[in-house]
Amino acid sequence: MIKEIADHRSIRSFSSEPIAEQVLEEILLAATRASNTGNMQLYSIVVTTDESIKKELAPCHFNQPMVTAAPVVMTFCADINRFSKWCKERDAEPQYDNFMWFISATVDAMLASQNASLEAEAHGLGICYLGTTLYSGDKISEILHLPNGVVPIMTVVMGYPSDTSPLTDRLPLRAVVHREKYNDYDRATIDDLWRECEASELTARLLQQNGEQTLAQVFTRHRYKGEDNVAMSRTLLAHIKAKGFFNQ
Amino acid sequence: MIKEIADHRSIRSFSSEPIAEQVLEEILLAATRASNTGNMQLYSIVVTTDESIKKELAPCHFNQPMVTAAPVVMTFCADINRFSKWCKERDAEPQYDNFMWFISATVDAMLASQNASLEAEAHGLGICYLGTTLYSGDKISEILHLPNGVVPIMTVVMGYPSDTSPLTDRLPLRAVVHREKYNDYDRATIDDLWRECEASELTARLLQQNGEQTLAQVFTRHRYKGEDNVAMSRTLLAHIKAKGFFNQ
Repeated sequence: MIKEIADHRSIRSFSSEPIAEQVLEEILLAATRASNTGNMQLYSIVVTTDESIKKELAPCHFNQPMVTAAPVVMTFCADINRFSKWCKERDAEPQYDNFMWFISATVDAMLASQNASLEAEAHGLGICYLGTTLYSGDKISEILHLPNGVVPIMTVVMGYPSDTSPLTDRLPLRAVVHREKYNDYDRATIDDLWRECEASELTARLLQQNGEQTLAQVFTRHRYKGEDNVAMSRTLLAHIKAKGFFNQ
Repeated sequence: MIKEIADHRSIRSFSSEPIAEQVLEEILLAATRASNTGNMQLYSIVVTTDESIKKELAPCHFNQPMVTAAPVVMTFCADINRFSKWCKERDAEPQYDNFMWFISATVDAMLASQNASLEAEAHGLGICYLGTTLYSGDKISEILHLPNGVVPIMTVVMGYPSDTSPLTDRLPLRAVVHREKYNDYDRATIDDLWRECEASELTARLLQQNGEQTLAQVFTRHRYKGEDNVAMSRTLLAHIKAKGFFNQ
């Protein structure tokens, strides 16, 4: 397996060593080599290294210390602004300000982010994706001056690791792979797929820490709660609409 | 740069050589090593090799011949079904049936797809992403029996290349990278960023073939037309709602 893919783990603790400009450029170039919609490159990458801007961003990511500790914070954005501006200046009428193109631009941004992450790891850097970007899109847009047609999707922090962590377990491969068509899960299959995970020491520790009976309750009652999910969904959708992605 | 990232190009023409099961498994394992939301693995990969199902899928992808010619068609889906089923069977109330989790699951699916694509290329295979998946989500869901909570996002066809193609040009790196904050584009910058692309032989050929004055017009009037964009956006949004992702 490609070494960087096999060895990937999220790194949340970084040394203060900066990333050389030449390495950064190679990482960003790798991002642009990814497949993208119609070669329209419907994404932008905001590279933040300035301490004061990282401090502004930190609360958007629930003040996870890695946002300010990592030398580089990359915010991957869905972007129809650049392409639409080009169209308008070339006597062409862009109509990419709708939902499908928001998803296409999100896909472009994510394929680019994964290339960047793997390339960073090839240079000995550690990375961590921050899903918090989706919770705080409106605030991040303000801080980073994102114009109409641009929405932040994922943030990747990167830097030289100051410690390492073991690989994270995954469900067995058969959990996510379906042959020919989708084979829906019955109770016995669900039990089988989660058996190892539920029997792990990590799960036992999480149950004790959270005072719950099942690992699923740790997710639904502590990590990602229903009321938060609904509130954040509304905020995210409102932000995407405010950024002009719903003219349909 | 990681070899597979540097050498990536879309391959649309395949030999009839099948992909060995062991290689396929390595590709799928690579997919699962990608970062994902809270290690919830909110995606599924439907691996289709059966000729008759590929034929059913072909019209969803505008009958591009590679869908039936490629030995393997992988449909990467956003999937909250599996995780939600697990929650319900563990006395936990999942509430991931909303917009933010649709985007999170889409991100998970896309990071997995990029790992799979690069790993496939490391085994000498060629791949092509099919954006048509977003146009025909409702029909693909029907063919692949996708249940509630599962939406197809991108299809990747893969096989041994029967011919090769040159690398595709990209805009200069400065087009997609913003330092510290987003620097919006003025007319001179747009002109500068597209200069090389617009001066290319490929552009000259496209203008002649399509009888247009600017490359942007080729995009807006021929490739991705406003009325289609709006219609497909409505269909996609309706499909996501029908699949239960809008309880908010």
